[in-house]
Amino acid sequence: MNSLSKALAAECLGTFWLVLGGCGSAVLAAAFPGLGIGFTGVALAFGLTVLTMAYAVGHVSGGHFNPAVSLGLWVAGRLPTGRLLPYVLAQLLGAALAGAALYAIATGKAGVTLGGFASNGYGEHSPGGYGLAAAALTEVLMTAVFLIVILGATSERAPAGFAPIAIGLALTLIHLISIPVTNTSVNPARSFGVALFAEPWALQQLWLFVAAPLGGAVLGALVHRSLLAE
Amino acid sequence: MNSLSKALAAECLGTFWLVLGGCGSAVLAAAFPGLGIGFTGVALAFGLTVLTMAYAVGHVSGGHFNPAVSLGLWVAGRLPTGRLLPYVLAQLLGAALAGAALYAIATGKAGVTLGGFASNGYGEHSPGGYGLAAAALTEVLMTAVFLIVILGATSERAPAGFAPIAIGLALTLIHLISIPVTNTSVNPARSFGVALFAEPWALQQLWLFVAAPLGGAVLGALVHRSLLAE
Amino acid sequence: MNSLSKALAAECLGTFWLVLGGCGSAVLAAAFPGLGIGFTGVALAFGLTVLTMAYAVGHVSGGHFNPAVSLGLWVAGRLPTGRLLPYVLAQLLGAALAGAALYAIATGKAGVTLGGFASNGYGEHSPGGYGLAAAALTEVLMTAVFLIVILGATSERAPAGFAPIAIGLALTLIHLISIPVTNTSVNPARSFGVALFAEPWALQQLWLFVAAPLGGAVLGALVHRSLLAE
Amino acid sequence: MNSLSKALAAECLGTFWLVLGGCGSAVLAAAFPGLGIGFTGVALAFGLTVLTMAYAVGHVSGGHFNPAVSLGLWVAGRLPTGRLLPYVLAQLLGAALAGAALYAIATGKAGVTLGGFASNGYGEHSPGGYGLAAAALTEVLMTAVFLIVILGATSERAPAGFAPIAIGLALTLIHLISIPVTNTSVNPARSFGVALFAEPWALQQLWLFVAAPLGGAVLGALVHRSLLAE
Repeated sequence: MNSLSKALAAECLGTFWLVLGGCGSAVLAAAFPGLGIGFTGVALAFGLTVLTMAYAVGHVSGGHFNPAVSLGLWVAGRLPTGRLLPYVLAQLLGAALAGAALYAIATGKAGVTLGGFASNGYGEHSPGGYGLAAAALTEVLMTAVFLIVILGATSERAPAGFAPIAIGLALTLIHLISIPVTNTSVNPARSFGVALFAEPWALQQLWLFVAAPLGGAVLGALVHRSLLAE
Repeated sequence: MNSLSKALAAECLGTFWLVLGGCGSAVLAAAFPGLGIGFTGVALAFGLTVLTMAYAVGHVSGGHFNPAVSLGLWVAGRLPTGRLLPYVLAQLLGAALAGAALYAIATGKAGVTLGGFASNGYGEHSPGGYGLAAAALTEVLMTAVFLIVILGATSERAPAGFAPIAIGLALTLIHLISIPVTNTSVNPARSFGVALFAEPWALQQLWLFVAAPLGGAVLGALVHRSLLAE
Repeated sequence: MNSLSKALAAECLGTFWLVLGGCGSAVLAAAFPGLGIGFTGVALAFGLTVLTMAYAVGHVSGGHFNPAVSLGLWVAGRLPTGRLLPYVLAQLLGAALAGAALYAIATGKAGVTLGGFASNGYGEHSPGGYGLAAAALTEVLMTAVFLIVILGATSERAPAGFAPIAIGLALTLIHLISIPVTNTSVNPARSFGVALFAEPWALQQLWLFVAAPLGGAVLGALVHRSLLAE
Repeated sequence: MNSLSKALAAECLGTFWLVLGGCGSAVLAAAFPGLGIGFTGVALAFGLTVLTMAYAVGHVSGGHFNPAVSLGLWVAGRLPTGRLLPYVLAQLLGAALAGAALYAIATGKAGVTLGGFASNGYGEHSPGGYGLAAAALTEVLMTAVFLIVILGATSERAPAGFAPIAIGLALTLIHLISIPVTNTSVNPARSFGVALFAEPWALQQLWLFVAAPLGGAVLGALVHRSLLAE
């Protein structure tokens, strides 16, 4: 396969793993009686999907696994324009496949009700009941800082090899903060992949988890470029 | 000792540690009243057995500690054919010794009942009551991605030295997702080592935790080879 | 921008992230019913703010994000005198902005009472009811060891590139120990940023969380210099 | 100061941090109502004391912080004979100072009863009620594998710079497994430092937590030497 095909396979696979691992841990294990992993375990799982896949295929595609990341890197001049749309489509495909796989697993027991299926939400669908403004502010801020960490940790002056640790654990940290507010998106593909299989409200609220992460990513890229970069 | 003998000692020891540490944390500490480590702690323990031993003896044997990993690496052309069977036998021996050591420790208190002894199961022996199809799908997918992470993180283009972190934490992540489904195998030796000492159902259901991880490992190796590798 | 301006932006941003992430996880997620992250999750969050930002902007400013760290590094001869006050002011600004952002998010739901807002306290405002002497001793000791870890892990003889891991996880460790005593400061900016928005006692007790971390940082720098350094 | 004096200061300080951090998290934070860190948090704390100090002062003294580690490294030919006793004395001093500091902090609130003060025990003083044989087997096995990880991860063929991660997280793993059995020692200095301030049974049972870790360390060093080393 040529270089772009391999990169798209890597982005599809990595996003598949992000949604299957992150949302899977939330759906299957978070609230298991007595022994469940809670928000801490889910936060760890999301971060480790990125950490592991960034080491596994980061040298193939850059390891974005997230349309907001691809957009932010494009704004920062780190992604060729011709790759932006193909990357995003590969990510959405991977996310939808992961949603389907998780649906197949989660329904493989008696008496299951999927409910939100780890979808992102605000208002009455926020885990802690936070409204639209708080949800939007949270997603914008979290994604902006996420991009700043990504752009800084992968810059030439940062120590080589450590970026997957910094970036993966940044995603863990973002979840430790913001699961109660929006269930944490910062990634439109992650929101899309599970909303397809959840109750109808998830698709109705999806617009926020497309707009806010994309806006936050652009903001983060601009802050990096204007205040921090060489 | 010659190179193969040292490698077999390393595989035996590493698999001993994987089963003693991973299953030991589950049997001894997961459900300790009030302070127990839960699934998060068990997931961390399994991953750290691999992370620690891969740094300790990875340079001796490659650090597989898992027949499915050895098979997948052989399919990917990374393990000489003559080493496959000896590696698997050393892993099974290490796992059985760990099961025995854990049995000796766990029975060293009054009034203990071992029950499943951290064995893998499906149907009524799945921690969350998941059926055979969900269990098989989960084990195949988890092992396939595990192999993709292993093959990618140890490739020449990945940053040197970080593979044990990526691989160990991939195993942690896999447990964060899938303990509720099958108690998480992705490793026939791990399933074998404790099934020897558990209630009879564990050996009766062992076939799935041999077949699914091996199948998943081959799948992962083929995906890596056809879509991601140079 | 010139070098100092970029460094001040990095310190402001990093301290913003430390307070938003660390105190945010405490305010929003620690006590979430059934699934909350508890002190372990908060400890992890504080440490990961430093780990992630040290990789992202450590090469820009050194990655202090804490007036006590800046003071200790100045005592150790690692920070030019002319940078000490600007760094501290940038840190205080970042902390106050984070307090404001967190206030905006946390109040974005019905029926919220902020209470201590993750402020540091002693006596009746210590989470576990510890008195002034225990609180002061804890903050001095924790900050002193924090500086010893920072100075040692960034010395020329320590392995290159790993310092953000050591320093970030040192902050996690410090929180695992001392949240029950003082809610853990070791950082006057962190205490300041949330005290602005908390009940009045937080500003009244702020003096201790300025004095003890600064004293501890000087102590740590002197111990490093006299007993450990070349 | 000369090289040995600095090394002894580093060992004293590192062992101080190990006992203050590990036992401190257990005494102060493990069982905090509702938000406590549990065994998972204590396991993380013990491991992070070693990870952080190994990066901070490992280049000064080797970073043992444990008489069993010093003995095992001496058996493996990695520690000069003339350093063994001074190292052990410095470690015991650091541990006792940490016990005293923790005592001062822990008693700084009303109505406290220290009880076991995080001491190690067997039989009725084992957290889970495990008898002498199970306790001895556990401590011997855990310390033996700990030494194998230390000797392997610091060997010339292992990736440079990662040893503190492998060794620190090995200690975390050991605690995830064995806190219920003995409260986990694998370190006579750690047992000694808190037994001085605990109920009388702690000193009476101290012999086991000297003998078993030392025996396990010798066993681990011999296994490494005969089966794994070049």
